[in-house]
Amino acid sequence: MKILLPDTVPLNPVLPKGWEAVTIDARAEIPAEHHDAAVLVVWGASRRHLVSAAEHLDSLQLVQSLAAGIDGILAAGFDPDVVVAAGAGLHSLTVSEHSLALLLSLLRRLPESREAQQRHEWSTELGGLQPLHPAGRLTTLIGARVLIWGFGQIGQTLAPTLQALGAEVRGAARSAGTRAGFEVIAEREVPAALPEVDVLINILPATEQTAGAVGREVLAALPDHALLLNVGRGTTVDQVALREALEAGTLGGAGIDVTDPEPLPQDDPLWDAPRLLLTPHAAGGRPVGADERITANLRALVDGQEILHVATR
Amino acid sequence: MKILLPDTVPLNPVLPKGWEAVTIDARAEIPAEHHDAAVLVVWGASRRHLVSAAEHLDSLQLVQSLAAGIDGILAAGFDPDVVVAAGAGLHSLTVSEHSLALLLSLLRRLPESREAQQRHEWSTELGGLQPLHPAGRLTTLIGARVLIWGFGQIGQTLAPTLQALGAEVRGAARSAGTRAGFEVIAEREVPAALPEVDVLINILPATEQTAGAVGREVLAALPDHALLLNVGRGTTVDQVALREALEAGTLGGAGIDVTDPEPLPQDDPLWDAPRLLLTPHAAGGRPVGADERITANLRALVDGQEILHVATR
Ligand SMILES: NC(=O)c1ccc[n+]([C@@H]2O[C@H](COP(=O)([O-])OP(=O)(O)OC[C@H]3O[C@@H](n4cnc5c(N)ncnc54)[C@H](OP(=O)(O)O)[C@@H]3O)[C@@H](O)[C@H]2O)c1
Ligand SMILES: NC(=O)c1ccc[n+]([C@@H]2O[C@H](COP(=O)([O-])OP(=O)(O)OC[C@H]3O[C@@H](n4cnc5c(N)ncnc54)[C@H](OP(=O)(O)O)[C@@H]3O)[C@@H](O)[C@H]2O)c1
Repeated sequence: MKILLPDTVPLNPVLPKGWEAVTIDARAEIPAEHHDAAVLVVWGASRRHLVSAAEHLDSLQLVQSLAAGIDGILAAGFDPDVVVAAGAGLHSLTVSEHSLALLLSLLRRLPESREAQQRHEWSTELGGLQPLHPAGRLTTLIGARVLIWGFGQIGQTLAPTLQALGAEVRGAARSAGTRAGFEVIAEREVPAALPEVDVLINILPATEQTAGAVGREVLAALPDHALLLNVGRGTTVDQVALREALEAGTLGGAGIDVTDPEPLPQDDPLWDAPRLLLTPHAAGGRPVGADERITANLRALVDGQEILHVATR
Repeated sequence: MKILLPDTVPLNPVLPKGWEAVTIDARAEIPAEHHDAAVLVVWGASRRHLVSAAEHLDSLQLVQSLAAGIDGILAAGFDPDVVVAAGAGLHSLTVSEHSLALLLSLLRRLPESREAQQRHEWSTELGGLQPLHPAGRLTTLIGARVLIWGFGQIGQTLAPTLQALGAEVRGAARSAGTRAGFEVIAEREVPAALPEVDVLINILPATEQTAGAVGREVLAALPDHALLLNVGRGTTVDQVALREALEAGTLGGAGIDVTDPEPLPQDDPLWDAPRLLLTPHAAGGRPVGADERITANLRALVDGQEILHVATR
């Protein structure tokens, strides 16, 4: 049996007896001599690569993504009986780290500090004695009310760190309950919760239901000092509404790692929105624990056991 | 009995029976009618204020600082039988938060992202697929070896968060041992440890012994990719050596919240050192839990119990 590995990341999974691994170009079509593969590992694949796999890999049983977001794979048209497994969890630490970087940079006013530094200015507005909770501005996580919308693998990894820094953290997901020790509200309860949210962290996947989730109404319902992060997918935020809220001062600031489309066009006015930090899909991009995941799911496939993080389609 | 409160921060401690609290100007000399005070609370005081207190408060029993660093009070010349209590712990969360902000901003290359944003450039060098551990550069806490030099209240608050983000954390203090679950090495073991340190976080107090602790030898012993933070006191770092290491590329980057002197003079070449983030003593500056601390230590004074965080002088 054959497993195809992408050339976009170094991989070395443990193979079951009788299996062979072949590393192929993840940006090109699948070469004809590998159309017999049973498993395809996907990381940084081009649309062409995925479409040719969906079309030609007739013995395919499992598509193992190393990405948490599998919207690209689902769009490629694989047969319904091919199992698609998401790389859930492989990006939880990296995306949490980047989310914290963006959020703390906004809270601790590092972009303004950088500008003061460039002017050689020791700003007494930024340093020295400060109120813990200045009027109209959020400058610390201590006592901050955080809502993480999309409370899956990444959100549950990020939440304890925010809590340790003094924040009150809740999640929002498709169903309510307690997850990983945190209160989670259902999506329909989100609008009513927003006026009491200081930091909204969007880690939603791109689906039909999440398109434009953070739109004009959501932004208007947040307090004027609130901060927004988006480290999920660009399609979930109405970028025009976001820019207008920042320009109007009805949103305190935003940290955006994903846009729609990507790359963000050079002439998009979002680049210049005030109090916006924009990073070029830099949060994840480096799976942690990929070999262990591939090894486990290959083993599960061979043994007829449950494959981890199968996507519902 | 009288307790003098500074006008630099809103305070409302619970007073023992028969006590009166008076709020006074923390930048001015102590007014003559308050020379009978038994307790002086210090926050953002001028040198003049402290010196006049040391000279005139003849019934003074306790100086309660709200700052973690009490070098200024010790220099004012209070009588040896006046107890000086540090505001230890009141800044642990805020300084931890700021340390994380500086560190994550350096790791996640946010200053470079900001410049790319200003150019409207979606940089594929900063985002998209990335190696987890690129050669010659530290870009994540995952697997990073962190040494916190000065492993007191602040260090012990910061350490678990760094660990949760994937770092291997050790401390260094005047004596070795295990503290708060972390391995702590003694200061004399620091030089030998440095070649295996990816991030050195300096949270040392300003004392005679710590002056210039992070000097030329320490910087040379760190790997070229290492990052340095200083959120302790400016005197503990040789700023000329720091700038030269950054310019020579023998230090990966630095986040500096304290300098010597403060404010840093406008013409100091440190402002323009490459890969340096400089904030104007902005980490703490806002005591958390001050009323509770004053209340507890006033109670202890009255009851003849142990006062918290008495400074050894
Ligand atoms: N910026 C980056 O570099 C980067 C890197 C990795 C991932 N991501 C993005 O982050 C997303 C989340 O990753 P994760 O590992 O935390 O995923 P996950 O474990 O699948 O969690 C997704 C969360 O979103 C919620 N959700 C709300 N509406 C949903 C809908 N219509 N369909 C599916 N889920 C919905 C889910 O609710 P339930 O729990 O109720 O199902 C769940 O709480 C990924 O999908 C990806 O788009 C971005
Ligand atoms: N940037 C800011 O805004 C800001 C805000 C607050 C505080 N600070 C600075 O941070 C420092 C640390 O605060 P903290 O609350 O963590 O203090 P702490 O609890 O007193 O801890 C100080 C640590 O430094 C170690 N140390 C090493 N050499 C020392 C020496 N010669 N004298 C005294 N201690 C020595 C101590 O070792 P042992 O444990 O072995 O005694 C201890 O681990 C303060 O002194 C202050 O200067 C800065």
